[in-house]
Amino acid sequence: MGQLVAQVEAGSAMVPPTGSPADQTTVRRSNLSLVLRYLSTRGPASRAAIAAETGLNKTTVSSLISELQARGLVTETGLQQAGAVGRPGRAISLDGATVGALGLEINVDYIATYGLDLTGRTLIDRRVGFDAMGSDVDRSLRQLSQVMGAALTDLDSAGLRVMGITVAVPGLVNVETGTVLYAPNLGWRNVPVAQRLADTAPTVPIPVSVDNDANLAALAEFTVGVAAGTPDLVYLTGEVGVGGGVISGGRLLRGGDGFAGEVGHLPVDPNGDRCGCGRTGCWETKVGLAALVRMAAPDHAYGRSDSGPVRVPEERLAEIERRQAAGDRRVEQALREIARWLGVGGAILVNLLNPRVIVLGGYFARFRGQLIADAQAELDRLVVAGPDARCLFVASELDFRAAAHGAAHVAVERVLTDPTMVAMLASEPSQPSWRRR
Amino acid sequence: MGQLVAQVEAGSAMVPPTGSPADQTTVRRSNLSLVLRYLSTRGPASRAAIAAETGLNKTTVSSLISELQARGLVTETGLQQAGAVGRPGRAISLDGATVGALGLEINVDYIATYGLDLTGRTLIDRRVGFDAMGSDVDRSLRQLSQVMGAALTDLDSAGLRVMGITVAVPGLVNVETGTVLYAPNLGWRNVPVAQRLADTAPTVPIPVSVDNDANLAALAEFTVGVAAGTPDLVYLTGEVGVGGGVISGGRLLRGGDGFAGEVGHLPVDPNGDRCGCGRTGCWETKVGLAALVRMAAPDHAYGRSDSGPVRVPEERLAEIERRQAAGDRRVEQALREIARWLGVGGAILVNLLNPRVIVLGGYFARFRGQLIADAQAELDRLVVAGPDARCLFVASELDFRAAAHGAAHVAVERVLTDPTMVAMLASEPSQPSWRRR
Repeated sequence: MGQLVAQVEAGSAMVPPTGSPADQTTVRRSNLSLVLRYLSTRGPASRAAIAAETGLNKTTVSSLISELQARGLVTETGLQQAGAVGRPGRAISLDGATVGALGLEINVDYIATYGLDLTGRTLIDRRVGFDAMGSDVDRSLRQLSQVMGAALTDLDSAGLRVMGITVAVPGLVNVETGTVLYAPNLGWRNVPVAQRLADTAPTVPIPVSVDNDANLAALAEFTVGVAAGTPDLVYLTGEVGVGGGVISGGRLLRGGDGFAGEVGHLPVDPNGDRCGCGRTGCWETKVGLAALVRMAAPDHAYGRSDSGPVRVPEERLAEIERRQAAGDRRVEQALREIARWLGVGGAILVNLLNPRVIVLGGYFARFRGQLIADAQAELDRLVVAGPDARCLFVASELDFRAAAHGAAHVAVERVLTDPTMVAMLASEPSQPSWRRR
Repeated sequence: MGQLVAQVEAGSAMVPPTGSPADQTTVRRSNLSLVLRYLSTRGPASRAAIAAETGLNKTTVSSLISELQARGLVTETGLQQAGAVGRPGRAISLDGATVGALGLEINVDYIATYGLDLTGRTLIDRRVGFDAMGSDVDRSLRQLSQVMGAALTDLDSAGLRVMGITVAVPGLVNVETGTVLYAPNLGWRNVPVAQRLADTAPTVPIPVSVDNDANLAALAEFTVGVAAGTPDLVYLTGEVGVGGGVISGGRLLRGGDGFAGEVGHLPVDPNGDRCGCGRTGCWETKVGLAALVRMAAPDHAYGRSDSGPVRVPEERLAEIERRQAAGDRRVEQALREIARWLGVGGAILVNLLNPRVIVLGGYFARFRGQLIADAQAELDRLVVAGPDARCLFVASELDFRAAAHGAAHVAVERVLTDPTMVAMLASEPSQPSWRRR
């Protein structure tokens, strides 16, 4: 778990609202969070060591540990190893293996699931092909609900209390209501995803939140990805749509309505192609996965009538990789063209946002070898601040799974920030955790 | 003083670094800030009322008030009016009239000065024409230093202890070192402004900071301007250069190197004119003041050999306004063209940053009547999220003085966030305040 996220989120949790002092409850909650994060990033430690390194007094630390134990978040694991500061005491360690979170992503041609516990251990990481583009909203949501139910059953069997579910969607999301306002590549408008999932699975009282896929992927990169800890970064989804997630000053940039980062429709070529959004020359028409397939393997392009099973993006990409290996000039040319346009749009992002890193996700990462050098050259040529604002393109290591990763991490992060959201163990009945409120 | 800035900045001050608890010193400082901000936004109040409304206990409030008194920041002003909660007590009020800050701005054709005290009272607000474009760096800095010295003398005569000076520059600034890395319209590269000002005025030991003009103007708009309190806004300078200052989630967006908001060089027209930066079709070439003058009054264009006194932008604008009033079709056409391009570039900002308001500064505000409706129509047509992400163009009321305003407010904000930076009165010698460290 990246330390910087911890810092940032802990920070925001500690800010009392205007007009209220740094009162007892706030301080208590933030100190619980402090100890829990300490154990989560540094590993097991004695009470004395925790007190010494956090600056909290020992009585306070003991009381905090007792509460975290009661919530099933930490445990005593025997004597701490010799050589530690102070007289040896029992070591306290994170017991997050019983508290978990679930991330889901629905995209044009797949549904991804990612489940993890508080220690960062991955329990579920899978993806199934699903033709969301060719399905209506009802069918897509039924499928999503089934996938969610199966994952919850698995996590429950593994003994996890699931504290939250987050769904990633490639579109504009009202995060407060969990409604997808517009997802052009899914054909969705005003879909109350959180509500609909709750309706289709009334036995699941776990809170469901919904967020933009690129935002969640950016959080995943910032937390566990290739640029973890970089406080200013942009993540680009490389799918049929191209979305952007912006981390600025260590915080996800959302904007007034939560719609920040709509990079796919940056106008980059007034003489370009018509975009799905109805405008002309959007960045997505230059660098999206559909553009690559159209240029490099037109017989496999999206939208063609296509019998047989749904293909996850990797299958289309495998075909392009095969042709590239066979020396197909069209593929080479298409990738060069895409690299150049990545640089053009990237320069807009750098001039406006001044990130240190642009993380290339999805198919961009798959073709890192063909894309990054050319894109970087074009970017460097176009950025106003020149070498003073050097921003590097790097390829994501999370592949097409970044958004689902991020979705699960968001829920985990909430627990680390406010451990009091996990109920005391004693007060809990013995039915499966996700059937309880 | 806008309440939202208070909230945000107080917040960041209260965040303890990772690994340290919400310790005594931090809590004390943030509570001092809390009480000072309370008095600054709500006016005089009794100790009992402060305690009741902040939730701090009365003993703590008394102790905090004593310290703020010792620092010369608050004073007792007699009995509070009847009708207040609790038994009448002496009212405490902000005594910020003796603590102040100075903002300076150097731009293409003027130097602006803005001095204010902690209560928000304006003490200096002036602007002089200065041909920075036609002067070398040394001459410009000498002039800036003279203006600064005169302002400090005036503030000292008014009995103010000046706590900070901030200089606004239209360019890329390394805020940490106070160095202007690149200000294309001034012709500056790598100018250590803070250091140079300290060198030319060795008797002024007050810390000088340097920042981008648009960033500071955005802070001014967020604090006291037409969109005060809007947590997501963009400010656009309407001068020869077009700079952007971005407030996102109530915080100034800086980026990895402090260069965020370089909107003037967004590529909007591959077939456009060559820009001063060496590229083609930058937004600045479409909407900058030089573009307006070139289109509407070419005989008054920038860069022409020009005997006679230096003209502040208003004089060039007065000429254009005169022609417009006389029914000059060229002016009308130029403004229509500029309005359209404002919408085009504005849409990029809205897609990326999702602000609720774009504040038009400088000459844009002067021609609000001719620009806003057309710019808004174009913006609404181009924004991907459509009406869900409605962003309004509004005209600044701060005219060409927004950056200097913001510069002074930044220094005031620092005191409100950390009142301990103002020395105890008893420990101070009786020489002019700005000659002390």
